[in-house]
Amino acid sequence: MIIVMKRNCTREDVGKVIAVLKSHGLGANVSSGSQATVIGVLGDKSKLEGENLEVMSGVEKCVPIMHSYKMASREMVPEGRTVNVGGEVIGGKKLCMIAGPCAVETQDQMMKAAAGVKAAGAAFLRGGAYKPRTSPYAFQGTEENGLKMLRKAADAYGLKVVTEITDHDLIPIAAPYCDMFQIGARNMQNFRLLREVGRTKKPVLLKRGMANTIEEWLNAAEYIMSEGNCNVVLCERGIRTFETATRSTLDISSIPVVRERSCLPIIVDPSHAAGKASYVEPLALAAVAAGADGLIIETHPNPQKALSDAAQQLTLDAYARLFEKVRRIAPVLGREV
Amino acid sequence: MIIVMKRNCTREDVGKVIAVLKSHGLGANVSSGSQATVIGVLGDKSKLEGENLEVMSGVEKCVPIMHSYKMASREMVPEGRTVNVGGEVIGGKKLCMIAGPCAVETQDQMMKAAAGVKAAGAAFLRGGAYKPRTSPYAFQGTEENGLKMLRKAADAYGLKVVTEITDHDLIPIAAPYCDMFQIGARNMQNFRLLREVGRTKKPVLLKRGMANTIEEWLNAAEYIMSEGNCNVVLCERGIRTFETATRSTLDISSIPVVRERSCLPIIVDPSHAAGKASYVEPLALAAVAAGADGLIIETHPNPQKALSDAAQQLTLDAYARLFEKVRRIAPVLGREV
Amino acid sequence: MIIVMKRNCTREDVGKVIAVLKSHGLGANVSSGSQATVIGVLGDKSKLEGENLEVMSGVEKCVPIMHSYKMASREMVPEGRTVNVGGEVIGGKKLCMIAGPCAVETQDQMMKAAAGVKAAGAAFLRGGAYKPRTSPYAFQGTEENGLKMLRKAADAYGLKVVTEITDHDLIPIAAPYCDMFQIGARNMQNFRLLREVGRTKKPVLLKRGMANTIEEWLNAAEYIMSEGNCNVVLCERGIRTFETATRSTLDISSIPVVRERSCLPIIVDPSHAAGKASYVEPLALAAVAAGADGLIIETHPNPQKALSDAAQQLTLDAYARLFEKVRRIAPVLGREV
Amino acid sequence: MIIVMKRNCTREDVGKVIAVLKSHGLGANVSSGSQATVIGVLGDKSKLEGENLEVMSGVEKCVPIMHSYKMASREMVPEGRTVNVGGEVIGGKKLCMIAGPCAVETQDQMMKAAAGVKAAGAAFLRGGAYKPRTSPYAFQGTEENGLKMLRKAADAYGLKVVTEITDHDLIPIAAPYCDMFQIGARNMQNFRLLREVGRTKKPVLLKRGMANTIEEWLNAAEYIMSEGNCNVVLCERGIRTFETATRSTLDISSIPVVRERSCLPIIVDPSHAAGKASYVEPLALAAVAAGADGLIIETHPNPQKALSDAAQQLTLDAYARLFEKVRRIAPVLGREV
Repeated sequence: MIIVMKRNCTREDVGKVIAVLKSHGLGANVSSGSQATVIGVLGDKSKLEGENLEVMSGVEKCVPIMHSYKMASREMVPEGRTVNVGGEVIGGKKLCMIAGPCAVETQDQMMKAAAGVKAAGAAFLRGGAYKPRTSPYAFQGTEENGLKMLRKAADAYGLKVVTEITDHDLIPIAAPYCDMFQIGARNMQNFRLLREVGRTKKPVLLKRGMANTIEEWLNAAEYIMSEGNCNVVLCERGIRTFETATRSTLDISSIPVVRERSCLPIIVDPSHAAGKASYVEPLALAAVAAGADGLIIETHPNPQKALSDAAQQLTLDAYARLFEKVRRIAPVLGREV
Repeated sequence: MIIVMKRNCTREDVGKVIAVLKSHGLGANVSSGSQATVIGVLGDKSKLEGENLEVMSGVEKCVPIMHSYKMASREMVPEGRTVNVGGEVIGGKKLCMIAGPCAVETQDQMMKAAAGVKAAGAAFLRGGAYKPRTSPYAFQGTEENGLKMLRKAADAYGLKVVTEITDHDLIPIAAPYCDMFQIGARNMQNFRLLREVGRTKKPVLLKRGMANTIEEWLNAAEYIMSEGNCNVVLCERGIRTFETATRSTLDISSIPVVRERSCLPIIVDPSHAAGKASYVEPLALAAVAAGADGLIIETHPNPQKALSDAAQQLTLDAYARLFEKVRRIAPVLGREV
Repeated sequence: MIIVMKRNCTREDVGKVIAVLKSHGLGANVSSGSQATVIGVLGDKSKLEGENLEVMSGVEKCVPIMHSYKMASREMVPEGRTVNVGGEVIGGKKLCMIAGPCAVETQDQMMKAAAGVKAAGAAFLRGGAYKPRTSPYAFQGTEENGLKMLRKAADAYGLKVVTEITDHDLIPIAAPYCDMFQIGARNMQNFRLLREVGRTKKPVLLKRGMANTIEEWLNAAEYIMSEGNCNVVLCERGIRTFETATRSTLDISSIPVVRERSCLPIIVDPSHAAGKASYVEPLALAAVAAGADGLIIETHPNPQKALSDAAQQLTLDAYARLFEKVRRIAPVLGREV
Repeated sequence: MIIVMKRNCTREDVGKVIAVLKSHGLGANVSSGSQATVIGVLGDKSKLEGENLEVMSGVEKCVPIMHSYKMASREMVPEGRTVNVGGEVIGGKKLCMIAGPCAVETQDQMMKAAAGVKAAGAAFLRGGAYKPRTSPYAFQGTEENGLKMLRKAADAYGLKVVTEITDHDLIPIAAPYCDMFQIGARNMQNFRLLREVGRTKKPVLLKRGMANTIEEWLNAAEYIMSEGNCNVVLCERGIRTFETATRSTLDISSIPVVRERSCLPIIVDPSHAAGKASYVEPLALAAVAAGADGLIIETHPNPQKALSDAAQQLTLDAYARLFEKVRRIAPVLGREV
């Protein structure tokens, strides 16, 4: 950490800051330039918890230099982590392809979806049984019954199951039915939920909050990892900006940034970012080209009758066409599907 | 709802949309201009759940006309609601003044804080016992022990207690110690938590999420109200924008917008918006001038030693000075403290 | 346009709105639902200039249905426009590859840059002679002398020249030296400059403003086209958001959105979006995969000595490697370089 | 400036950075902590122009410590500057009240507006003769004829004139008719225009760009001041965010931030921020309470017939009521109107 002193600070101000650092076993490196005095803190700044240097006399601001996450950092596993979900490895050469409807509605819908997803070539089936909805009057999900339909459809076609849990109470309920928990964008900083999934060993797909920085996202992953569960896969799904042409703004740059800063795999959800089916394919191809480790895409046997997010769900045929394009572009990037 | 058809839509496309509307008992008003055909939906559009007109042939987009919240709307209580918290009325002529430290740390700290808050003239004491923190390695709160210290200090000075609950499991634990639950910005769309506090009768202070629109915020209030608890007070605390000079950007305009659209009282938290003590007073006065029903402000007996958010906490003296200015400006606006 | 009336509007309010519409030769289609009354305006709403229905009694809001640009719209040229720059066609099968240093510094620098750009396979050389800089004390460009160096280098290697003009006074000065004008992000709504380049016949590369919506961008193109110059190529270069890990947030979704709404070609500038050399290649490949018609990339013979934007400029070797990857990915997408 | 080295940097890397600093006459202060090596640059970092340390081996990033503006900084005039506009002083005890229609339309309109503005108590008349409009097909202003009408109306009522110039060519045309130039939000980084008004001595009202940080805004002021014209008044008018309930998001916090960092006066434009007449008064009062030095407000004798921005213009009666409230709130804040 760097402490920048005010222009008009006194020698005494500087002395007091150094004294506080020393009282916590930290060294200080004072740099008095022509324009500013800057104090470099030597040692582990976590020792400073309970000291608030920013409110001391003469202090202008404190500038953090190091990231606050450790286990999620690239330095921890320079070659990158892989996450094994029931035999399917995420983060390796093979792209992780997840697809399925926004919400689990009926067994028939799920069987058709699973058949289409499998035929296209994907290994993971998705479907929401507990739906976070902006309005309390909108469809809220089929709950445990939905989980059963999801599992049955996946098993019929040999697919792995990814499903969102919106509350820690759902962990024991959903665990028997799924291979991977999904934490949604609205829950990225639901720290209780993060800690609780961290106490399981089940892989976690952690979506980025729509107003969260990459740093906050990696800290959220750190919450899970710090409890002992390192099977975390990140999922970029768009951030909130002033542009209204799309539902969210897909932050495609987050892929190389995460690659540089973190050891965790990252996949992309173009469906929620776009909010419109016709934009999904170009965004999906862009994500793969930018280096994503996979894609999670909404597809429905009959989008017109979907109970939620209809506008952004692909037909099964459109998904199959998209998959085919991914199959052709992957080798150019050293990947496969 | 208005359905805008594509320029090149056919008569058949229009006919099919009307047929779907009719099948749900809805009327249609077709308006064919020189540039576009538009279909007005007559009736309650909630009947359309399960139909996704946007993916029908020839449909360009659907434009909602009505808000999706009802109980939180202005129309429901045109003169505005008041919320009674143990005898203190929020939303009337008297401004609701809440103050106290970011986190409950020690009994001594809380007694000093309560003494200062009371002396300044406030009626509510705040303090966090469960702290949502970006990093898992930061101080996480004193939990139930903190709630006890908070209540004891408040009782010693005749203050009401407001405290944040970060999870529905904490409702029965925190209820005996507080007069009002606070739902933090990160939990504004934690729908399970919203529903659960809605099943209590205790007043709720609902902070705006940092990336949430006013519409989403009012829908979050609707979640609480739809469960039977109408004692909701909104709290603007800044939204996330590109500007980094302040921690968040206080959306001062949300006050007149909420006043126009909703029947609920609205107070302002200038401390979290500013992130810096020296900006708190001007923002607090601005909030009162814009018509806010109160202020929640962080103040600490010794900010330099605060375990969290030190930079934005006022000293008790600074809080007393701020309060004095509010006391003088309030009458000009037809309010009192 | 749709006029949404207030819930409590009177018959008289509706009558007055209709009267205003009629007085301008416009029809009205009234749709009185159970929840709201909505008036559809029939005819060309531009006739309403000078009438402000939103301030009339009983009017809640006016919702525009049509875009305000015409020549830039997709409907105008459904198959899409191409722009011919001295024989090089932008918007066809061949990707438009533009590269070169941020700023023109010396003749030697430009000769080396041109040699590298040509060797990689690009057809266009870029270089700024007039630099818009945030601080008045930063390097401001080599001006007309720079234009000469740029042209000389391009001619030596048979490259087309693209260069930014920051003011309409520079049009006659820069015209003899370049094949295509560039309008920078900060000038996207410099309407005088847009009109003046519209009065020339020279192709224009129009960058998106960092806080401008796609709608505003297409309206800016319309300014140029409405003066008679339809040789406009759009350039996405990132928008301003809360994320600070990159200089701007590349709005990759703008590619399919522009493709759907506009007839104009669109290329991408990953260098300014990223602000960091190591992120440029993944963003460039993503842009091509999303359907961009080309790339403009900053490359410098010696980035460490660059007078501006050093961190984001590629070495010539790195550019050649990037180009090679584009060459391999293009055919999968039905393109070539 | 602080140079943060990569974790795995070598001694040689550090040595090379120091050598570059020395070659420019700068000192280096190396701070090697347990987690990172940091180099403090001693001396004037502007000597480093042409060196790009960020691309050197082993360098992680460079963190600027000092602001790049000097004349606009608070340190330059700690007590704050005042700007004299024909005898009216902006930045002193008296609030600067500017009002008038968005656009100058007719002489009759301007005479009525001037009469109303004067009667309310304001000293400045505003009105746009050159209008920057998003669409080329919208009303573009009455130009020089409009300037004449504006001046005539102002003179009839003893008011000062503020008007926007959208291009440097307009400086000699507009100068005889106005007392203060206004630079609009879209031109905040039109550096040619900034320099040219800097070469006049006429006061300049510099609006903040809707996507510009406060730092960039102060640098834009520095452009004007560095040419010799220190008569700059800043004007906050809202920034672009995800919230669509208002036209822009008024950044009320910019007032205390500018007060702390800059010596320049700052006024607020609540009309453009709100985009809706009913929100203007609460925002205006908030601005005064937060410490603004004045207000610029749109008012029109007949908003319904205004040629631009009708929804946000107050009637003259509404303006008079607003003024009356400002008159009552000002003394509480140590100001007067």
